[in-house]
Amino acid sequence: MGADDERRVTITAIAQEAGVSVPTVSRVLNGRSDVAPGTRERVEELLRHHGYRRRGSRGVRRADLLDLVFNDLDSPWAVEIIRGVEDVGHAAGVGTVVSAIHSHSTSTRQWLQNLQARASDGVIVVTSHLIPPVHAQLRRLNVPVVVVDPAGVPATDVPSIGATNWAGGLAATEHLLGLGHRRIGFVAGPPHLLCSRARLDGYRAALEAAGAPLDERLVQAGDFYHASGFAVGSALLDLDDPPTAIFAASDQMAFGVYEAVRQRGLRVADDVSVVGFDDLPEARWASPPLTTVRQPLVEMGRLAARTVLRLGQGEEIEAPRVELATELVVRDSSAARPR
Amino acid sequence: MGADDERRVTITAIAQEAGVSVPTVSRVLNGRSDVAPGTRERVEELLRHHGYRRRGSRGVRRADLLDLVFNDLDSPWAVEIIRGVEDVGHAAGVGTVVSAIHSHSTSTRQWLQNLQARASDGVIVVTSHLIPPVHAQLRRLNVPVVVVDPAGVPATDVPSIGATNWAGGLAATEHLLGLGHRRIGFVAGPPHLLCSRARLDGYRAALEAAGAPLDERLVQAGDFYHASGFAVGSALLDLDDPPTAIFAASDQMAFGVYEAVRQRGLRVADDVSVVGFDDLPEARWASPPLTTVRQPLVEMGRLAARTVLRLGQGEEIEAPRVELATELVVRDSSAARPR
Repeated sequence: MGADDERRVTITAIAQEAGVSVPTVSRVLNGRSDVAPGTRERVEELLRHHGYRRRGSRGVRRADLLDLVFNDLDSPWAVEIIRGVEDVGHAAGVGTVVSAIHSHSTSTRQWLQNLQARASDGVIVVTSHLIPPVHAQLRRLNVPVVVVDPAGVPATDVPSIGATNWAGGLAATEHLLGLGHRRIGFVAGPPHLLCSRARLDGYRAALEAAGAPLDERLVQAGDFYHASGFAVGSALLDLDDPPTAIFAASDQMAFGVYEAVRQRGLRVADDVSVVGFDDLPEARWASPPLTTVRQPLVEMGRLAARTVLRLGQGEEIEAPRVELATELVVRDSSAARPR
Repeated sequence: MGADDERRVTITAIAQEAGVSVPTVSRVLNGRSDVAPGTRERVEELLRHHGYRRRGSRGVRRADLLDLVFNDLDSPWAVEIIRGVEDVGHAAGVGTVVSAIHSHSTSTRQWLQNLQARASDGVIVVTSHLIPPVHAQLRRLNVPVVVVDPAGVPATDVPSIGATNWAGGLAATEHLLGLGHRRIGFVAGPPHLLCSRARLDGYRAALEAAGAPLDERLVQAGDFYHASGFAVGSALLDLDDPPTAIFAASDQMAFGVYEAVRQRGLRVADDVSVVGFDDLPEARWASPPLTTVRQPLVEMGRLAARTVLRLGQGEEIEAPRVELATELVVRDSSAARPR
């Protein structure tokens, strides 16, 4: 079977060449997670090599398209999620249609009309407050839906994929406590979002466990964007007894804290430690490079694509809500408390 | 005609409601540029409001899909271009399929197979060295192609959209000269790319016009990525007679220069002025906010989408290569030469 062979390759032939069973190849094709990573890679490589194309199962017309919908395409982590979804889609021979629906109801309606006209094998929604109406209409179209949800808003009856926000808040705060900091400021996210609450609770739990004081003046909420990080960071640094470290619940807010530090003639790390949350690519390029809590956005995109493909095949999924582990990435913005 | 009207809305009805002629509505639908912005907006809003769906012209099957292809989805400006393309596609009722082809020939072949299976109304390629083979095959499929090309590599016979790199290099250097700087370092892009050469020539032209010395030790090439900006910035700052300002041919390299400045105990702006090129969203979040040359990436994406839709309608386009104007955005990283 040459790479240029235009004949349809069968699952049986792929299984034979990979040295695995036919059900294993099916599991890979359906994006199931119960396949060893090495096996998955080998099978995906062969599927790709032979240009294997899936046929619709259960008589359903396949569109060979997944839809990935953002509220706005202004979020810096959009490209990370696109990358994860596209990667799984590409391997399965499914195109990734990226849309922004801008929270306008006319825009949402048009998007649904377009989708209905060309069909879709599944929709991944990266946003939250649009779910109920969109989901109801997609259910009527019989299109499966999965929510990727870095903000941690609770899904209704839609499968969703998030990150372990509480554990991330705990890890970041424990890191700063370990460096000798006791007065640690926290730039929280918007209070109405569950992820904000989870990160805040992680911060509080770490302080309590260490017996460090819980000064409520050190906790102020931003909105995840840069300007609010600058404003809250400035307010914290202007306290009579300012914190020696500031943990911001998003990288963008952490960059705002950087600017507040700079404008006071202080230095990040040397004078004030700063920790973020997200691990956007920009975190590596900051000066100094930012210590932050990594949300596995690419992996969240991958899992969302696999899940929606499985739902499209009529499979049951294990749990309606999955949280992938966050991970503390230590760089140069956090240092021992100045004496 | 209510917003929820499910009947097909005609162009005539839209024209009537907008108070314009039918050909004007056609021009908007075909993404033509010879429509006044206010008129375009009004017509697009009505098309959206009534959920107008185009039919195929000239008997060609419409896929209602545009393909937007990146080499890799790791470029920080990817989301900006996606935003522009998606915006025009959305208004025209056309979905935007985003792909990465990772420079692998097997991957490219599979991408073409997928595209052939589901059809596409047009392909926008955001990369360069893959064009010849991809283009030949797309021609066989009778799918129009446009290249978005922030790197300025010359297109062969494919319409392409770039930015005015030479003018950007000139404007950035004139800005630094105007602040009193005479020794201005330049972190160039990869020498084999035309855009690197154009930016360098703009830098040189500004120095010459101002009668400033042209010291070749102050010009060193990077690869547009962060690490090379750090390396070249470090080398320039370690010269016996270091520059008082550094112009980097990409924002990422400018951030690398920031870090080189910081590691030497110096301050951006106060001690060394830094100017970038791109105006990524990150430029606003840098500390200090980065003065940079803006590439209009969203607009480049929009124009590419309009152009490929027009080509799909069999229209002639005015010029095979269009360069959109760059613009200097002055923020806080550039300041008067220290005395």
